[in-house]
Amino acid sequence: MEIEHDFIDKLIRLIQDKKSVVCMGLDPRLEGEGYIPKYLIDQYDDPNKIILEFNKTLIDNTHELIPVIKPQIAFYEKYDALNGLKETIKYAHKHDLLVILDSKRNDIGSTSEAYAYSTFQVYNADACTLNAYFGIDGIRPYLENYKEKGMFILVKTSNPSSRDFQNLFSIRLDEVSDVEYKIKKEYVELERNYIHMAKLVERWTEELPLFSGYSNLGIVVGATFPDELKIIRQITPASYMLIPGYGAQGGSASEIKYGFDKDGLGAIVNSSRNINYAYNQSKTFPPEKFGEAARKEIKTMNLQINKIR
Amino acid sequence: MEIEHDFIDKLIRLIQDKKSVVCMGLDPRLEGEGYIPKYLIDQYDDPNKIILEFNKTLIDNTHELIPVIKPQIAFYEKYDALNGLKETIKYAHKHDLLVILDSKRNDIGSTSEAYAYSTFQVYNADACTLNAYFGIDGIRPYLENYKEKGMFILVKTSNPSSRDFQNLFSIRLDEVSDVEYKIKKEYVELERNYIHMAKLVERWTEELPLFSGYSNLGIVVGATFPDELKIIRQITPASYMLIPGYGAQGGSASEIKYGFDKDGLGAIVNSSRNINYAYNQSKTFPPEKFGEAARKEIKTMNLQINKIR
Repeated sequence: MEIEHDFIDKLIRLIQDKKSVVCMGLDPRLEGEGYIPKYLIDQYDDPNKIILEFNKTLIDNTHELIPVIKPQIAFYEKYDALNGLKETIKYAHKHDLLVILDSKRNDIGSTSEAYAYSTFQVYNADACTLNAYFGIDGIRPYLENYKEKGMFILVKTSNPSSRDFQNLFSIRLDEVSDVEYKIKKEYVELERNYIHMAKLVERWTEELPLFSGYSNLGIVVGATFPDELKIIRQITPASYMLIPGYGAQGGSASEIKYGFDKDGLGAIVNSSRNINYAYNQSKTFPPEKFGEAARKEIKTMNLQINKIR
Repeated sequence: MEIEHDFIDKLIRLIQDKKSVVCMGLDPRLEGEGYIPKYLIDQYDDPNKIILEFNKTLIDNTHELIPVIKPQIAFYEKYDALNGLKETIKYAHKHDLLVILDSKRNDIGSTSEAYAYSTFQVYNADACTLNAYFGIDGIRPYLENYKEKGMFILVKTSNPSSRDFQNLFSIRLDEVSDVEYKIKKEYVELERNYIHMAKLVERWTEELPLFSGYSNLGIVVGATFPDELKIIRQITPASYMLIPGYGAQGGSASEIKYGFDKDGLGAIVNSSRNINYAYNQSKTFPPEKFGEAARKEIKTMNLQINKIR
């Protein structure tokens, strides 16, 4: 049955089964103190193997507590470890986890098709992040060829300089009169660029099938801007939110509560560093126990977030 | 001497030596009629080898006539042929060509650093394309760690739906009065999102060293919007333009003439499909002569474009 293969449908089922909306980022880092433990790095010559071992241990320790993981492809590219990425995704699937490939690709036509193919057929991810600066031309190849997969479009990112561009006040030319245009202050707050991006996503969602009220076309909204998150939630009621920036970047549980609907659905909350390298922030866990440290951190997140959703 | 390693400095020297501003895109496609010839596909089992052979032949036939190539990474990812990409870049360097990796990456912090590392140290490209939706946070890791490399930021893309978002009229909130704001029609034309993106790039360029008037921070502006190209040229006088959309997407020589300064510098013009698969549009060249067909197409482009610059 096709319905079972739809990303959002499966995500919601896993969220309900596991009572968790936590997404574990997988951002492997081989250099510097406090990242992948040295004993593991010394064990293999091939970064693919080091990274896969690290990820497997994290998955072994956490898969019952989370519905989804989000590997950040940049780190796998950096270490020439795309095979490690593929094997990680395979391993995650065996452990009843969905996989969002965080790659923020953006292009048009056959190039966009090629990116979609890599995401879903080479790496075998279940969902991905996308940047929609190109407009619908960059998203259509995904919606047309992989409509059962999940896509999360960048709307409001968690970083400070997201204001540089995303917070510009913007309107459509056809809304502008020839001579002058009255701007009320509330209107300005509602018409920044990130709002227009959310409105584009909302428009693209109109034709899509819904599962428990949500389509496969989601959005990315940083945990660090709670007011903006609240407004965006109202504009895009049918889009699941992927919320990064929890923990390491400063977002807390109270700041993301407006991401959830009355059933506690509507958002997943990502943390990468704080989970992957939790052992480094604790006195309880030696490097060898990084998996247990990650498990404990996720339990804490689940407690915090389930309380507010 | 550091000056010799700067991307723009070297690009300008090659443009002057070779009397060409043509950038050859390298978009390998293995399926479908009229792309990489079948005889070559049948020759090897490994897509890396097929693609490398194809690219080598193109480079052999064209390197004297062009300063720079632009592989689109999506196609190499699609065929699991990133080794073929690396070898192509190595081969291009041996043939006195610069390489722009077209990847349009966008992220922040350590992720952005990881992408920059892959681009310049794993793939060994000389320049790349970037999407600046994140604002300066996404660009800073490139400017700080790889200031001698080239970067081309998406401003106005060549596709029809670039208007969805890039053409929204936008202003900064601090320019908006509390009560009302008079908008003249000319002002609207000058303040669309792509213009604001160009202004951001211009601001980021202010501190950078210039070579023949140009910094290493360039922009991408599609050949299909000549009026917009002309306005953007005035806003970003210190940014080299990478102009895609020539040929296959409908841009012609007269439409890009405002990209160039009085010395014929300031822009490079990319064509991918029309060069790579030129054999398929001609009656003169059989598939085996795809390299010669590409050479002829570049000669035609050089004639057309050198006439207007």
